[in-house]
Amino acid sequence: MKKLVLAYSGGLDTSYCAKYLSEEEGFEVHAVSVNTGGFTKEEIKNIEEKALQLGAKTYTSIDAVQSFYDKVVKYLIFGNVLKNNTYPLSVSAERIVQALEIINYAKKTGAKYIAHGSTGAGNDQVRFDMIFQILAPEIEIITPIRDKKLARQEEIDYLKSKGVHREWAKARYSINKGLWGTSVGGDETLTSHLPLPDEAYPSQLKNVGTQKVKLTFTNGELTAIDGKKDKPINNIEKLNEIASLYAIGRDIHVGDTIIGIKGRVGFEAPAPLIIIKAHHTLEKHTLTKWQLHHKDYLSNWYGMLLHEGQYLDEVMRNIESFLTDSQKNVSGDVWVSLHPNRFFIDGIQSKHDLMNAKFGSYGEMNKGWTAEEAKGFIKITSNAAKIHNAVNSPEK
Amino acid sequence: MKKLVLAYSGGLDTSYCAKYLSEEEGFEVHAVSVNTGGFTKEEIKNIEEKALQLGAKTYTSIDAVQSFYDKVVKYLIFGNVLKNNTYPLSVSAERIVQALEIINYAKKTGAKYIAHGSTGAGNDQVRFDMIFQILAPEIEIITPIRDKKLARQEEIDYLKSKGVHREWAKARYSINKGLWGTSVGGDETLTSHLPLPDEAYPSQLKNVGTQKVKLTFTNGELTAIDGKKDKPINNIEKLNEIASLYAIGRDIHVGDTIIGIKGRVGFEAPAPLIIIKAHHTLEKHTLTKWQLHHKDYLSNWYGMLLHEGQYLDEVMRNIESFLTDSQKNVSGDVWVSLHPNRFFIDGIQSKHDLMNAKFGSYGEMNKGWTAEEAKGFIKITSNAAKIHNAVNSPEK
Amino acid sequence: MKKLVLAYSGGLDTSYCAKYLSEEEGFEVHAVSVNTGGFTKEEIKNIEEKALQLGAKTYTSIDAVQSFYDKVVKYLIFGNVLKNNTYPLSVSAERIVQALEIINYAKKTGAKYIAHGSTGAGNDQVRFDMIFQILAPEIEIITPIRDKKLARQEEIDYLKSKGVHREWAKARYSINKGLWGTSVGGDETLTSHLPLPDEAYPSQLKNVGTQKVKLTFTNGELTAIDGKKDKPINNIEKLNEIASLYAIGRDIHVGDTIIGIKGRVGFEAPAPLIIIKAHHTLEKHTLTKWQLHHKDYLSNWYGMLLHEGQYLDEVMRNIESFLTDSQKNVSGDVWVSLHPNRFFIDGIQSKHDLMNAKFGSYGEMNKGWTAEEAKGFIKITSNAAKIHNAVNSPEK
Amino acid sequence: MKKLVLAYSGGLDTSYCAKYLSEEEGFEVHAVSVNTGGFTKEEIKNIEEKALQLGAKTYTSIDAVQSFYDKVVKYLIFGNVLKNNTYPLSVSAERIVQALEIINYAKKTGAKYIAHGSTGAGNDQVRFDMIFQILAPEIEIITPIRDKKLARQEEIDYLKSKGVHREWAKARYSINKGLWGTSVGGDETLTSHLPLPDEAYPSQLKNVGTQKVKLTFTNGELTAIDGKKDKPINNIEKLNEIASLYAIGRDIHVGDTIIGIKGRVGFEAPAPLIIIKAHHTLEKHTLTKWQLHHKDYLSNWYGMLLHEGQYLDEVMRNIESFLTDSQKNVSGDVWVSLHPNRFFIDGIQSKHDLMNAKFGSYGEMNKGWTAEEAKGFIKITSNAAKIHNAVNSPEK
Repeated sequence: MKKLVLAYSGGLDTSYCAKYLSEEEGFEVHAVSVNTGGFTKEEIKNIEEKALQLGAKTYTSIDAVQSFYDKVVKYLIFGNVLKNNTYPLSVSAERIVQALEIINYAKKTGAKYIAHGSTGAGNDQVRFDMIFQILAPEIEIITPIRDKKLARQEEIDYLKSKGVHREWAKARYSINKGLWGTSVGGDETLTSHLPLPDEAYPSQLKNVGTQKVKLTFTNGELTAIDGKKDKPINNIEKLNEIASLYAIGRDIHVGDTIIGIKGRVGFEAPAPLIIIKAHHTLEKHTLTKWQLHHKDYLSNWYGMLLHEGQYLDEVMRNIESFLTDSQKNVSGDVWVSLHPNRFFIDGIQSKHDLMNAKFGSYGEMNKGWTAEEAKGFIKITSNAAKIHNAVNSPEK
Repeated sequence: MKKLVLAYSGGLDTSYCAKYLSEEEGFEVHAVSVNTGGFTKEEIKNIEEKALQLGAKTYTSIDAVQSFYDKVVKYLIFGNVLKNNTYPLSVSAERIVQALEIINYAKKTGAKYIAHGSTGAGNDQVRFDMIFQILAPEIEIITPIRDKKLARQEEIDYLKSKGVHREWAKARYSINKGLWGTSVGGDETLTSHLPLPDEAYPSQLKNVGTQKVKLTFTNGELTAIDGKKDKPINNIEKLNEIASLYAIGRDIHVGDTIIGIKGRVGFEAPAPLIIIKAHHTLEKHTLTKWQLHHKDYLSNWYGMLLHEGQYLDEVMRNIESFLTDSQKNVSGDVWVSLHPNRFFIDGIQSKHDLMNAKFGSYGEMNKGWTAEEAKGFIKITSNAAKIHNAVNSPEK
Repeated sequence: MKKLVLAYSGGLDTSYCAKYLSEEEGFEVHAVSVNTGGFTKEEIKNIEEKALQLGAKTYTSIDAVQSFYDKVVKYLIFGNVLKNNTYPLSVSAERIVQALEIINYAKKTGAKYIAHGSTGAGNDQVRFDMIFQILAPEIEIITPIRDKKLARQEEIDYLKSKGVHREWAKARYSINKGLWGTSVGGDETLTSHLPLPDEAYPSQLKNVGTQKVKLTFTNGELTAIDGKKDKPINNIEKLNEIASLYAIGRDIHVGDTIIGIKGRVGFEAPAPLIIIKAHHTLEKHTLTKWQLHHKDYLSNWYGMLLHEGQYLDEVMRNIESFLTDSQKNVSGDVWVSLHPNRFFIDGIQSKHDLMNAKFGSYGEMNKGWTAEEAKGFIKITSNAAKIHNAVNSPEK
Repeated sequence: MKKLVLAYSGGLDTSYCAKYLSEEEGFEVHAVSVNTGGFTKEEIKNIEEKALQLGAKTYTSIDAVQSFYDKVVKYLIFGNVLKNNTYPLSVSAERIVQALEIINYAKKTGAKYIAHGSTGAGNDQVRFDMIFQILAPEIEIITPIRDKKLARQEEIDYLKSKGVHREWAKARYSINKGLWGTSVGGDETLTSHLPLPDEAYPSQLKNVGTQKVKLTFTNGELTAIDGKKDKPINNIEKLNEIASLYAIGRDIHVGDTIIGIKGRVGFEAPAPLIIIKAHHTLEKHTLTKWQLHHKDYLSNWYGMLLHEGQYLDEVMRNIESFLTDSQKNVSGDVWVSLHPNRFFIDGIQSKHDLMNAKFGSYGEMNKGWTAEEAKGFIKITSNAAKIHNAVNSPEK
């Protein structure tokens, strides 16, 4: 029988795939979902039941939160990656790891086919297909929703005709939740001018006061909150919980999709935004000017290539080497204050802090150098432009 | 007599210079202050009186707000320049224009000497000296505070001894105000871990509700607020007034000074932060991916070189050409909501908006291309990594 | 009747297209060839005759040498563009201008179809299709060779069957000649390890002595050779003639094609290689360090995007603005010696030369600054790393 | 007694220092020379004798060829570093390692002073002082030549007066020789327009025929020549010997000095130029487009910072991590033909070669993808510019 692995989420599209591929196309469907932080145990249980009801021969839930962190999130933190200076790449990053886990599963289980429910108009099809094709060109990719250009109603009608009577009412806002943030799409995000209403975001403002949090980084990784050590993935989850009570971390991202059109999406990512700004502040104190500069250059690229599904380009490994090496001294504490709808980085403390009064304070009297030395520095620093001006000034 | 132009602000350091240089060193002191948006008419009147009392032969106030905008601020907006992703370069930018105006004045009036009150431990000495030396190497630069490493009390004592009895009590926070933001320094900013208290910032929260503002950009310049057209500099001032009622635009910048030490400074820059984010959002809708990408690269450099006093490097003119050319289609409206201590970019409208449902909507069914075309695109986009993996995968 | 414009070169592929499209598909074929410097008048006459014999209703030769220079070559010189530090992009650049001219012709003449003879395995199809689609999405693109995956013999057989009896013997080396260089492909370039034999290159060594040539640049453009002023395109052609007698300008380029595979091609480009190195040397004398640096960055991108058919991305116009502005002072003479198979840049002379003993000579005693000033410069330049080392050195 | 380490080369300047510092300033002078590949054993013996005659208490020769390779040269090869696309940084690179070895020696031996013979007008003073100050701020730097602005004749007169009667006749060309190339300065290089005569270069053309050489790289390092394995430093020396018989590797570098003036210097670097082009060609076959692209960016910076004495900036270590990681697959053979005054890279062979007919040959018929897939790829790749043109084209 034709063994097929289906990337299954429990939604309408992949439910249609499960039924259609097993019933009409004669595949032996093995449904797999990859948890990158968005699912509770109950939800997974529920997804499993549905998959089996739809005709899947087996269902497997892969817990990929740690692998998501190790392969991608860690480097997004090292690089302070915000796409277009805004978006922590919540969904883009997840898709990569989901694709890696699924193709790995397919190869391990000897499947000859792999299916996903993406349409032909988005980024996810590119991310999935690319990783599948690169790592397993021998496995055929099956995409019914894309190929048949199915409308929601057609899918629902088909499932009904097969006796699957579920509530498929489209939620007003489509939500994608994971460790590294939640994306929110709706009618507003299809326009250029409308913001999302408050209620579209998954978390609602609960705390109206102010709270101080101390984040501890060790070689760039978040190793403790308020002095309590834990694994980085647990700390990220914990910070998400704390900060979402303040409805922190919302914004709207507008960017270039891989297929050349512009896309707009809302998101809520409290921990990612706080961690990135806290980590970046710690780096401003502990890295040199050129480290900050070239890290920015490479991180920007890391984000762009990740977003575009190019995670397997070998340059990504080279960039990861640079980023890892750059974190040697990025250790210390960062104090953050949380307020309703916003946060503020109060300051940092690190034994690697390069801002150290011992070596002179900015603008203050100091013993590090004399006025003459400063004047010598400025004079010689002016040399090139002084010569340029003398040679080219219009008066001469 | 030895004609000298003194960059005069009315503060202790330049007051000392005025007195000392005219009385002890026998210079004919011509005090000049350059207004880049920080001074009211009354303040200027007051500065003038003081200067003359201190022995200056003449006092001149140069209104450089428009020139500040034309020479620098405009490009900081075109480039969405935030140093280290945080600081709009409020002070750095001002100093450049102040130096340009002062050296221009000195050359026009035939002065052979030029003086400023900077110490030997900051960025300003570099910015002033560099521009002075490059444009007028024949004019000698005189810097008593730097050369004599004077402490505040020594200056006060000297002035007292000369019969100048003013209140020089040091303000708890030193403030530098201009069109493009206000910087705030204090005991806290000399540490790495302490934030500034609310009262250190020049504006205090007055409005606690929410307000919508419509910003209109024309070729990248802010040409109207809420539909009311005006000169960009007036619009910036107006937006500063509106948004400062919400205490918007505060943060702390940590960065590398030109002299190699790290410096930390608080700032409040409501209009700059709103304008940059609004302008950037409009660009995300109207520029191509590569325009956004390379603009970022060049703008980052524009900010760095400006910060470091390298405004006269010819590459700055080349970058300005790029930036100006990139603004051809950056026209349209941006809606912003103001809230206490924060703002949100609601959306944009532009006839140059590249996010246009006519050409396909992100993730939605569309008529622009078929599933087969999408698959062909992905397949060929995968080619390079597919080959790389086949050639180098460890299994083979 | 279905009016079709065919990009026609006189070779086998486009001859097949001319016959097939007019005879079998019922198109009214208008053959057009675009001369970017590779054709003599006689060759054009010959191409015309062939086209009409094959059933084309009209034939038009567009002289695009000047437009080629104005739209592309000029910027390749301003940018010293050598792909992968080797290849002057001879063919890539031509294709862009050929596509622009042909689509312009098709729109002007109201054609509804446009055809070219590219296969599905190369870069040219991408360059042609992209420019056609972007500028005239309403015109349908017809590509028989690509669609039918025709082998040479099939094309020859078809033409014979239609009474076209020409000598189609495949040349051992396929040559593409234009103003900006000649590419050479053969069996060797399909391997990674074999060089092309001398006889594969279009020019053969004729002069064995040495010759000095003086190139005069005005704002970056080659405006005279040995003091004789002429249009840049004439100067380029003249220099090609002179230098090809020395068999100068051969190399092999290996690079990434747009479709993800690596490609290898020989080329001979005497004038381009000499002009670029001469121009670059002049720039090293007349531009600042940061101008050279950022020009390199942008030029590299200009070459990459041009190579990949992205000439119409708006960022290309922005880069052209930067490049044009950067050439303000790139004027002067460059002396080049030509030797068999190589050349040497002897030196330059320019009134904008920044290397000027008046301002101090490298390593020589000088009056520009004192030892103390140099020491002050070095001390403060060391500050950042000194602090970094003190804070982070393992001993402490 | 005041223990001082003198960076001693045996030339006039450092001979003066040896005598002057021991005799007039009462230092206990310990002369040290660092061999980075330029000295024979005999020369070292000779240098030693001279040092002791001049009053040095001890003389030490440090063999730093391997350390020069490990710390710098290796990365210059990995990065294909040619400053301004021309100069392999022969001298700049040496100075760094010489400074590192000398300061290390000074710290180990407990010296409180360190001296070098640089003037105040060049790059070397910056490289030496920076590394000394950063690694040992507690050691005082003594530079008599710079401080006293001594002319050659004054130094000679002083030495004569002290009974040192040597032949100090200035060579017409000053030569600096090392593993990574020889620099040549003379009257011509103080002008912008004159080339150096043939006889100024250290090697003269001896072989007039042609010779093929096979270079084997392993993870980016030159591990064999013509199949004979040896240490990279030995292979570099061997290749220098072979290729210098063909007078290969000469050029003139014009660049920005650290102190802001332009400098011009001739050089002969046969092995460096051949190795870099051979290595780069191998990389074009084995690295992805984005690896090549970002390697270039970082390598260019590596060269610039190295040139400017910023070797100890922590970003250099981060870049080295990237470069090392990028060499994983840069293994294989490169064939080079040597001709009088020039060389040609014939081709490469590598099991990591990404140009592999199995995956499709450039421009040839292939089975990797269909015409439809190619058209889909091009269509979607055109999307962004197509939309941009439709939205912004002037006609609408």
